[in-house]
Amino acid sequence: MKAVIPYKKAGAKSRLSPVLSLEEREEFVELMLSQVIESLEEAGIEKIDVLSPSGYGLEGMTKARVLLDEKDLNEALNRYLEEAEEPVLIVMADLPLLSSDHIKGITSTKKDVCIVPGKGGGTNALFIKNPSSYRVRYYGSSFLTHCSIATAAGQNFEIYDSFLAGTDIDEPEDLVELMIHGKGPARDYITRKFRLEVSRGRVGLVPL
Amino acid sequence: MKAVIPYKKAGAKSRLSPVLSLEEREEFVELMLSQVIESLEEAGIEKIDVLSPSGYGLEGMTKARVLLDEKDLNEALNRYLEEAEEPVLIVMADLPLLSSDHIKGITSTKKDVCIVPGKGGGTNALFIKNPSSYRVRYYGSSFLTHCSIATAAGQNFEIYDSFLAGTDIDEPEDLVELMIHGKGPARDYITRKFRLEVSRGRVGLVPL
Repeated sequence: MKAVIPYKKAGAKSRLSPVLSLEEREEFVELMLSQVIESLEEAGIEKIDVLSPSGYGLEGMTKARVLLDEKDLNEALNRYLEEAEEPVLIVMADLPLLSSDHIKGITSTKKDVCIVPGKGGGTNALFIKNPSSYRVRYYGSSFLTHCSIATAAGQNFEIYDSFLAGTDIDEPEDLVELMIHGKGPARDYITRKFRLEVSRGRVGLVPL
Repeated sequence: MKAVIPYKKAGAKSRLSPVLSLEEREEFVELMLSQVIESLEEAGIEKIDVLSPSGYGLEGMTKARVLLDEKDLNEALNRYLEEAEEPVLIVMADLPLLSSDHIKGITSTKKDVCIVPGKGGGTNALFIKNPSSYRVRYYGSSFLTHCSIATAAGQNFEIYDSFLAGTDIDEPEDLVELMIHGKGPARDYITRKFRLEVSRGRVGLVPL
């Protein structure tokens, strides 16, 4: 089994730009990436690849192998799957609430494919036992797409139901979940910049 | 064990007012309530109470006992807990993605209390084995509050990690989750009014 984390530091997380500067966002994604790698390591996954269109921000990466592919996310990942000769866990880099227990749960599925839904129809992680029989299509409502692709390819699948693994950090409101439910450097970074405030039923962010 | 569902139909779900009229919101919350009651029944919970400040919309309720209490949510629930002589599951009425399997999982906790976090710091369900030793405080960041209350009361607790049980339907974006992950009358109601459209990374709603 091996894991692959698609990653792009340059101009990352533009939807956080209302609350974080470009420099802050680039620092923050690096912290999130480190936490995801750490969770994978803790779960016992030894082969970890970071797949990026550029080496920017990955110069000092020692905990994972860096694969550069300038193609878009789907093309790059599908090439990766084609060439893989073992089960593949695709995990997004913006999941600081993903723990090693989640990873163990996802990769111990009895099914051919395990799909971890993210907020707003996304796919946060995807474990594929037979990578030559599966192709990904991220963007849009990729969760439903990934379910359909599995069925069309004759691969049965499990949906992994987790609030924490399901929380990808894209929007300012997602930072609230990180502050409430998270730990580690990514959370520390955000708690140095914001405090929580209650408004309109749900908790929001206030700059410090 | 018994379950209690706080419920208020009149003027319900004001944060959905950008996309649903008052009449629609009141119809919709009734459908969500029915689904929650059905999931509780399917999980084998025989005593189900609906706790409401008014009888409006509950005139024909046959599947649950209706308890009227004009006090605010916290006071009414705490009175309910004080008088309870068995474990209590408090479950919100806006959880159409909550299944009977979730309910079985929550109520089979080995701990004294099981807390199901909702989006934005909320508490979607709360299972309390010793109701005389626990008091609730909803609103605001109630998830963290409910964890602290358990600890202060000497009750150990489990956090139940579920994307689906964690999705309370309050904002238009939550309807997207219902359309993607849901089933039953509440989902049908919404799919008759909206379709999904991809924008800015996550899927959004478009009126039909």
